[in-house]
Amino acid sequence: MTRGVDLALHLVTDDRLPIDALPSVVDAAVAGGVTVVQLRDKRVDAAELIRRACLLSSVIAGRVPLLIDDRVDVALAARDAGAVVDGVHLGQADIPPVTARRLLGADAVIGWTAHTPAHLRAAGELPAGTLDYLGVGVIRPTATKANHPPALGIDGFAELARVAPLPCVAIGGVRPDDVAPLRRAGAAGVAVVSAICAADDPGAAARSFARDADAKAGR
Amino acid sequence: MTRGVDLALHLVTDDRLPIDALPSVVDAAVAGGVTVVQLRDKRVDAAELIRRACLLSSVIAGRVPLLIDDRVDVALAARDAGAVVDGVHLGQADIPPVTARRLLGADAVIGWTAHTPAHLRAAGELPAGTLDYLGVGVIRPTATKANHPPALGIDGFAELARVAPLPCVAIGGVRPDDVAPLRRAGAAGVAVVSAICAADDPGAAARSFARDADAKAGR
Repeated sequence: MTRGVDLALHLVTDDRLPIDALPSVVDAAVAGGVTVVQLRDKRVDAAELIRRACLLSSVIAGRVPLLIDDRVDVALAARDAGAVVDGVHLGQADIPPVTARRLLGADAVIGWTAHTPAHLRAAGELPAGTLDYLGVGVIRPTATKANHPPALGIDGFAELARVAPLPCVAIGGVRPDDVAPLRRAGAAGVAVVSAICAADDPGAAARSFARDADAKAGR
Repeated sequence: MTRGVDLALHLVTDDRLPIDALPSVVDAAVAGGVTVVQLRDKRVDAAELIRRACLLSSVIAGRVPLLIDDRVDVALAARDAGAVVDGVHLGQADIPPVTARRLLGADAVIGWTAHTPAHLRAAGELPAGTLDYLGVGVIRPTATKANHPPALGIDGFAELARVAPLPCVAIGGVRPDDVAPLRRAGAAGVAVVSAICAADDPGAAARSFARDADAKAGR
């Protein structure tokens, strides 16, 4: 995979998670098999995001890459503050991936949300090396994100993944037993929010996704 | 003044202003004597901010500097999109000024909000050349910004300006006849939001601040 990142199991932090619970949830999830952590919180300001990025960097301790949702300036400021931030995940309404790549450098991991054939075409038209992966969804209706696009289902995901110019991570309402079918449909991995963040045992929840991914993909 | 910017009359765009009205208001305000325009809109996403920065850059056409509130990544992306963006205005909860200076370069104009003696001390402890000015306020209670700090009045502003390590721009509820007293209290300029943006004649409103500033400061 590009830049060596294992996209198999992507944890997106849930902004409904209390700050006190964030470190233990992320620590357990990484121990349970999460391969990428994305810090996403649309509600807090930049200074608070920088503090949370530093906290998560310390908890993750280099085990897996840490990405920041949306805010490239926050990613860079968190690096200045001593955090190991490996890249960003951008939505269609965030700054353009080309600017993000220029600011973050060639080694950064950069993902882009792509829900439609038009998004996939736009991704394919970017200069080579701009993006590392696409986040494609939602797979099932989910309460995590208000106003999400219509659910694709496994088949809808497969149609997009078939023509995608980059590895696709399936996101949105993914359940453990979706992992194997999504893999067969071409997913490089899955991204999970509340199914891990809101679980009573986030480590076990992560294992249920990771085990499924490992076993059924024949690794 | 640092980097040649005339801080006398700073227009901060009001995010309650309809997008259709934005170009004509800013054009009239600049013609009326505004010396700096700051694009501030906490409600729209980065892509929309970039579009608005490009629009304002085109309207301003190099007459005065254009700053972006808060989002350094948006300022850089707007530059990539062809806008002339001269710098940013940062709040205490935005990314640190040192990171912003590194990202924007030595020629950028960077302002920082400072409401308290502690903020002034923090500004004074930054490396020389990090900031160009401080935004100090609020002067009078204002409906533009929810949860603003307690109003300083002219005397409170004067106390802060006396010990400030950088030129101070007075912001928050400033009226035309406050300009001369604020100048005497040490203000390098004033910043105005709704008094220009919500005026029936934004050009005349700008002139009322600019004329006052010019006449009473003896220019």
